[in-house]
Amino acid sequence: MNPPEVLTPERIDERVSAAVDALRSRPQISNVFLTACGGSFALMMPLQHVLQSSTVLEAHALNAREFTTRAPKSLGPNSLVVLCSHSGDTPETVEAARFAREQGALTIALTHELESPLALASEFVIGYQHGDAKRYAYTSAPILYRIIHALVDRATSSSTLAPATDAVAALDGIVEGLLAAHYDRADAWAKAHARSGLIYTLGSGPNYGSAYSFAICLLQEMLWVHSQGINSAEYFHGPFEITDFDVPFIDLLGLGVSRPIDERTHAFLVTKSDDVLTLDAAEWDLALVPEALRPSFAHLVFTPLLRLYAERLADHRGHPLSVRRYMWRMEY
Amino acid sequence: MNPPEVLTPERIDERVSAAVDALRSRPQISNVFLTACGGSFALMMPLQHVLQSSTVLEAHALNAREFTTRAPKSLGPNSLVVLCSHSGDTPETVEAARFAREQGALTIALTHELESPLALASEFVIGYQHGDAKRYAYTSAPILYRIIHALVDRATSSSTLAPATDAVAALDGIVEGLLAAHYDRADAWAKAHARSGLIYTLGSGPNYGSAYSFAICLLQEMLWVHSQGINSAEYFHGPFEITDFDVPFIDLLGLGVSRPIDERTHAFLVTKSDDVLTLDAAEWDLALVPEALRPSFAHLVFTPLLRLYAERLADHRGHPLSVRRYMWRMEY
Repeated sequence: MNPPEVLTPERIDERVSAAVDALRSRPQISNVFLTACGGSFALMMPLQHVLQSSTVLEAHALNAREFTTRAPKSLGPNSLVVLCSHSGDTPETVEAARFAREQGALTIALTHELESPLALASEFVIGYQHGDAKRYAYTSAPILYRIIHALVDRATSSSTLAPATDAVAALDGIVEGLLAAHYDRADAWAKAHARSGLIYTLGSGPNYGSAYSFAICLLQEMLWVHSQGINSAEYFHGPFEITDFDVPFIDLLGLGVSRPIDERTHAFLVTKSDDVLTLDAAEWDLALVPEALRPSFAHLVFTPLLRLYAERLADHRGHPLSVRRYMWRMEY
Repeated sequence: MNPPEVLTPERIDERVSAAVDALRSRPQISNVFLTACGGSFALMMPLQHVLQSSTVLEAHALNAREFTTRAPKSLGPNSLVVLCSHSGDTPETVEAARFAREQGALTIALTHELESPLALASEFVIGYQHGDAKRYAYTSAPILYRIIHALVDRATSSSTLAPATDAVAALDGIVEGLLAAHYDRADAWAKAHARSGLIYTLGSGPNYGSAYSFAICLLQEMLWVHSQGINSAEYFHGPFEITDFDVPFIDLLGLGVSRPIDERTHAFLVTKSDDVLTLDAAEWDLALVPEALRPSFAHLVFTPLLRLYAERLADHRGHPLSVRRYMWRMEY
């Protein structure tokens, strides 16, 4: 067996280019299924927003098991299926890749493990960086962001891939600056929530995925804190009645068309709860990101910024983010 | 001003027929946006499942504000937009109807108020029954179910509308039998949860909407109980780590292709939590429903059955389902 491939930026870029070339060689693609599970599924949600709002492609974000069980009749040789699994051995996602290929769809998979079942099952495979030595620009979400802009360009004869790639290249500087600027605030918030049993997260549009993954992966899975990722556009249609002075919320304020959704929710929320952590993309220095891309770019920043808050919470709770009681510890 | 129209079954059926005729006269329809807010949005989720699994139509279920803000480029004269608002004056849904018509889409709206802004903004309007004197067959979800089967027939040259209509006609008998059979169990469960601060709900496939609406409308909105509607297909990818012996869950077991998802989640859940309320569609007498329709029909039963549990919970908590602290009581 060969040693595992080193996931250098150059090697990742080569594989992105191969996938982009494949997209360009299939002008018949008319629909896109963005499919994965859990935190990887959350990565798909902003991509659906980008594709729906800027192309006539029919874009669907679906949990991988929902995808294979409902077996969409519109899946076929004119479909692109984008998949992601960190370990590459999530059975539902591997099955989704196999099913998609059987139906003749073009498959592009992201995974950290290039020898994994998902990598073997998919036509195009792109590795990504992870862990302490990573560059944010080469983690999964920004790579997916680039791929999707290649598709936008193909569908609309525009040129968004180059500026999107430049914007992604600026991600490390943006995130590192914000992590430093937010450290004290994150630590104080985490100390205040060291005993909180429940924390809601709110976001909308291209940032809903960040709110969802923070709720189900960081809070529920890693910290055993009850949560729900509430779409801010749904907040006034039910969830808002649980708002009270002592109910904790994390509220993401995005940019662009969905910002008014976030602002309306935020304006109400802060009058009824005394425990709102607001993360506002309008406060960030995004000078290196073209203005037209900023609304869809923001989620690339929210997710690592939120992780800082989770890390501080883990420290104050004495519950490392790596602790599990079920995952990886038993059959299920 | 004319007196409001009485929503008799005959009058509702007339309006369903008019909408069905409109669908048949537009063979060019290639995509469907199912859009609403909150509990009405939840009604759209099973329809997406039916359309995706049985037709090549591209079906999207989107919150109404997400729909108008992302303004899908694939929306146009070849689109059907299905909307629902009980009061007919949900601003986001009214705006969605206006936006859809501006783009040339066929609009079909369900509402309890036939003189409402939504009714005025939509091309085809169907009223439905509600409240104590209602027949379940003439409430919103089963009417939507019929409309969608008319579309399935148009797209696939099949004949599902007649059996779907017959199945819906059997709904009152099925639901009333189950409400009687479940009363004591619902009451005992409600008494045991009179002080519970949080209850999760689980469902998948065509039943996820029932789990979602119970979480956000019945538990969060009407009972001020913390919740999340967890898709059972996502459970093992994050949420399952919050499972513990004393964490309450309501677990919906459906039929058909998504049942294995539910069964896998259920098998794990009952070994880790001592507080699982299981509602299993396989235990129901669905003899009057054709076998092929049962998986997608089950949600029409889950939703009213769940409401019984909410009503008993309301009684034991001394918190009527009609009580609100914000909704209808202030501007927001």
